[in-house]
Amino acid sequence: MDPIKKLREHFTEIVRLKYIAYLLGWDMQVYMPPGASQGRGEQIALLEGIIHEKLVSDKTAEIIKKAEGLSNPSLIDVAMLREARREYDRAVRVPNELVKEIAKTTTIGHKTWEKARAKNDFKMFKPVLEKLVSLKQQESDKIDIGPTRYDTMLDEFEPGAKSDWILKIFNDLKSHLIRIIKKLDSSSDKPNQEILKKYYDPEKQWDFSVEVLKKLNYSFEFGRQDKSTHPFTTSLSSTDTRITTRIWEKFLPACLFGTIHECGHALYEMGFKKEIHDTILAEGTSSGIHESQSRLWENIVGRSREFWKYWYPILKKYFPENLKNFPEEEFYRSINSVQPSLIRVEADEVTYSLHIILRYEIEKKLIGEDILASELPQIWNRKMEELLGIKPSDDANGVLQDVHWSGGGFGYFPTYALGNLYGAQIYSKVLEKQPNLPEEFEKGHFSTLLSYLRENIHQYGKIYEPRDLLKKVTGEDLDSKYFIDYLEKKFYPIYKI
Amino acid sequence: MDPIKKLREHFTEIVRLKYIAYLLGWDMQVYMPPGASQGRGEQIALLEGIIHEKLVSDKTAEIIKKAEGLSNPSLIDVAMLREARREYDRAVRVPNELVKEIAKTTTIGHKTWEKARAKNDFKMFKPVLEKLVSLKQQESDKIDIGPTRYDTMLDEFEPGAKSDWILKIFNDLKSHLIRIIKKLDSSSDKPNQEILKKYYDPEKQWDFSVEVLKKLNYSFEFGRQDKSTHPFTTSLSSTDTRITTRIWEKFLPACLFGTIHECGHALYEMGFKKEIHDTILAEGTSSGIHESQSRLWENIVGRSREFWKYWYPILKKYFPENLKNFPEEEFYRSINSVQPSLIRVEADEVTYSLHIILRYEIEKKLIGEDILASELPQIWNRKMEELLGIKPSDDANGVLQDVHWSGGGFGYFPTYALGNLYGAQIYSKVLEKQPNLPEEFEKGHFSTLLSYLRENIHQYGKIYEPRDLLKKVTGEDLDSKYFIDYLEKKFYPIYKI
Repeated sequence: MDPIKKLREHFTEIVRLKYIAYLLGWDMQVYMPPGASQGRGEQIALLEGIIHEKLVSDKTAEIIKKAEGLSNPSLIDVAMLREARREYDRAVRVPNELVKEIAKTTTIGHKTWEKARAKNDFKMFKPVLEKLVSLKQQESDKIDIGPTRYDTMLDEFEPGAKSDWILKIFNDLKSHLIRIIKKLDSSSDKPNQEILKKYYDPEKQWDFSVEVLKKLNYSFEFGRQDKSTHPFTTSLSSTDTRITTRIWEKFLPACLFGTIHECGHALYEMGFKKEIHDTILAEGTSSGIHESQSRLWENIVGRSREFWKYWYPILKKYFPENLKNFPEEEFYRSINSVQPSLIRVEADEVTYSLHIILRYEIEKKLIGEDILASELPQIWNRKMEELLGIKPSDDANGVLQDVHWSGGGFGYFPTYALGNLYGAQIYSKVLEKQPNLPEEFEKGHFSTLLSYLRENIHQYGKIYEPRDLLKKVTGEDLDSKYFIDYLEKKFYPIYKI
Repeated sequence: MDPIKKLREHFTEIVRLKYIAYLLGWDMQVYMPPGASQGRGEQIALLEGIIHEKLVSDKTAEIIKKAEGLSNPSLIDVAMLREARREYDRAVRVPNELVKEIAKTTTIGHKTWEKARAKNDFKMFKPVLEKLVSLKQQESDKIDIGPTRYDTMLDEFEPGAKSDWILKIFNDLKSHLIRIIKKLDSSSDKPNQEILKKYYDPEKQWDFSVEVLKKLNYSFEFGRQDKSTHPFTTSLSSTDTRITTRIWEKFLPACLFGTIHECGHALYEMGFKKEIHDTILAEGTSSGIHESQSRLWENIVGRSREFWKYWYPILKKYFPENLKNFPEEEFYRSINSVQPSLIRVEADEVTYSLHIILRYEIEKKLIGEDILASELPQIWNRKMEELLGIKPSDDANGVLQDVHWSGGGFGYFPTYALGNLYGAQIYSKVLEKQPNLPEEFEKGHFSTLLSYLRENIHQYGKIYEPRDLLKKVTGEDLDSKYFIDYLEKKFYPIYKI
């Protein structure tokens, strides 16, 4: 058999096994009965073991080697080889014992974190966090992409990104964000969220979210929406991309923007070209680019004036008791109110990236052994004051708020902020080519934007690496000016500045 | 490691992989978006391949062999060994090529059957049915449990059962059933189903079914109910047994008795003793015994006068517009009306087994090459007249009605009728020990019966083979007199005979 075909098929088997593992995870979060969790954990561990074994097998090594000898590979062949090699190397370099130790410790880590957060007790979490840091450092040393351990971790989520590059971008971003927030704070006519905190019937919220999904061209032929504690998107094959949302009776944005955010992720995964379906390339090219798609739809589109010009009259019909006499413009201002707050996942578009920068600065130092785990609460709280001007009431609302570290997920946080930057830069290019987009949104047409994203980003999956993709689409490297510019143009008028 | 522990763990991995495959199947029938079916098929095939490979591996052979050398095995050890050997032998004797050919042909068979039934065209189905018969014959020749090919097939679903034994039981059963049906038909005061065919709000039907499930001690901690086209029960681990039901707006029994039937299956699987959880013994000991549990709850309990003494007042509150002035006794008669009909799955308690006997007689001859596939419609229709006194209007309502043969499932049908017989025999013994059961049902207490079944049947899973289990519980071999006796005592009064 053709060596590249063999490579393709071998990795498709691995990809399919991963999809099966994702179904186990989806079900666990959406429908599994409560008493089934231990058994499910054992199933996931078993399947992950099988996947790992298959990936690091001699057979994989041989298949990759043979395919690497190929002359005149196509663009897709090259990408498949690159990703196969990348995935194989990352896996084979880590000794089995360490893999198991990390798996075991992240399970304990997650449970301990849950308890520690509930009890507001960082000390309880500290020992397992220290162990996780140490294990992940060892893992980094084995994988050794470098130049630093943290760079190796980063590379897992944002291939090719280096921490120096991110540092430069974030430092620039930080000063601009602080400047903008100060300016907004000086306004004498600020919006507030009161209207969003009334009671909104959960069933109607659900129905409205489904109506929005359909208009945004989310396909219920190849996907579905369910409810879960934390919204997420998961692909269970290249023809099955599911999202979840959550409904808060007394906070309208939770379901609405949760749905649009996940829809953005899902549209990416629903748009891969047929040729790469169910292959190693059928994934977003990086966590940052993935996040750019969710945030583009959630924020740039979903919180725009034009979007609500179309949707507000419809939303009013769902909730006349709350919105009948409430002006569209005030609703638009309300969903865009900016307020430094303690919790990342509830942060607005302007302050959000500062939450990320804080985590980035801390985790980089933690991995680099410039700070100790025991210092985290203190450093966290100091940085919160520095960046956002507020101080956590306690660790549950501070350093313990996020799940990521409890699973050893160091290097992931920066991709959230990169997503904002990528999204703004991409959208500015789309607008150049399609200046009529805002007018289309006003009429409830969202397919021109989707077509552009499909053609220029979605279809490629992992064919292009994130940096190359961005350059291909926008002609430039990442530049935070687009995001800053977007924020200023949008929020100063909202704040009557 | 202790050889029996090794055997246990090895097969637990296989069992867990099967549970994962069942999740793929559950999701496919319950929540999967329509466009995802091809990808899902490929995932199932991949996983089944991995399971098969693991099962027929040299490692399995070696593990079994070592465990078989063990002295002083416990009761559970012996059962584990027996089942491991049984499963290994059945799998390893069939060449890989034949396994794949059967898998491929059953997929085609199922699709072709769906089309053929929709178009009412048996000729369309005939070629693939012939191929399936031939492939399953070849498979039987390889497995060769015997004495005949059909016995080998039967043994898959009802271990130890031989077709001569079934023939004797069915012949006896047949004459009694025909006699009873004639007698009921002579009644001048027959019940009818009119009251059940009014409009019953689907949501209320659902809520009532959940209320019943809770009372019957179905555990929502370790299970859940969903909707699907065909009701089914599936275990996704020993702590996760799910059921489905269907709701017909204009036929009350579909959801209600569908739920109770599947609940009976689920209670069996929820009752395995902890020691055998997630092992090769964590299954019903045979399809017939499994069916005895579902039918015992559905028919003997769920269609009893005492059951409705408790439930009818509650049901009336759900549907006052239909039932307010309808007498309890008439409702009880209505859900027990006997009427020879064309479709097996809609048949009543009395005529049901005749549908099975018909299929048994036909498939045995088909496999034994005493009849040709082309003769099936004609033979089917003749037998329908002979046994039930009615003639199918067409093949869609005749020989094409059931899915089983399209998947090569020969030898399964008899277990449905065996279930009726096992159920009645077991229940007659329970009543000897617990004569107050009917009075308990009247008060809405169902846990004494469940405790009895758990203690004497459920907890054992596959530890005892079906025949031994029945003898252990009832002190006798299977005897159809209990079922006949049950029917006569129940239905003559209903028909005022």
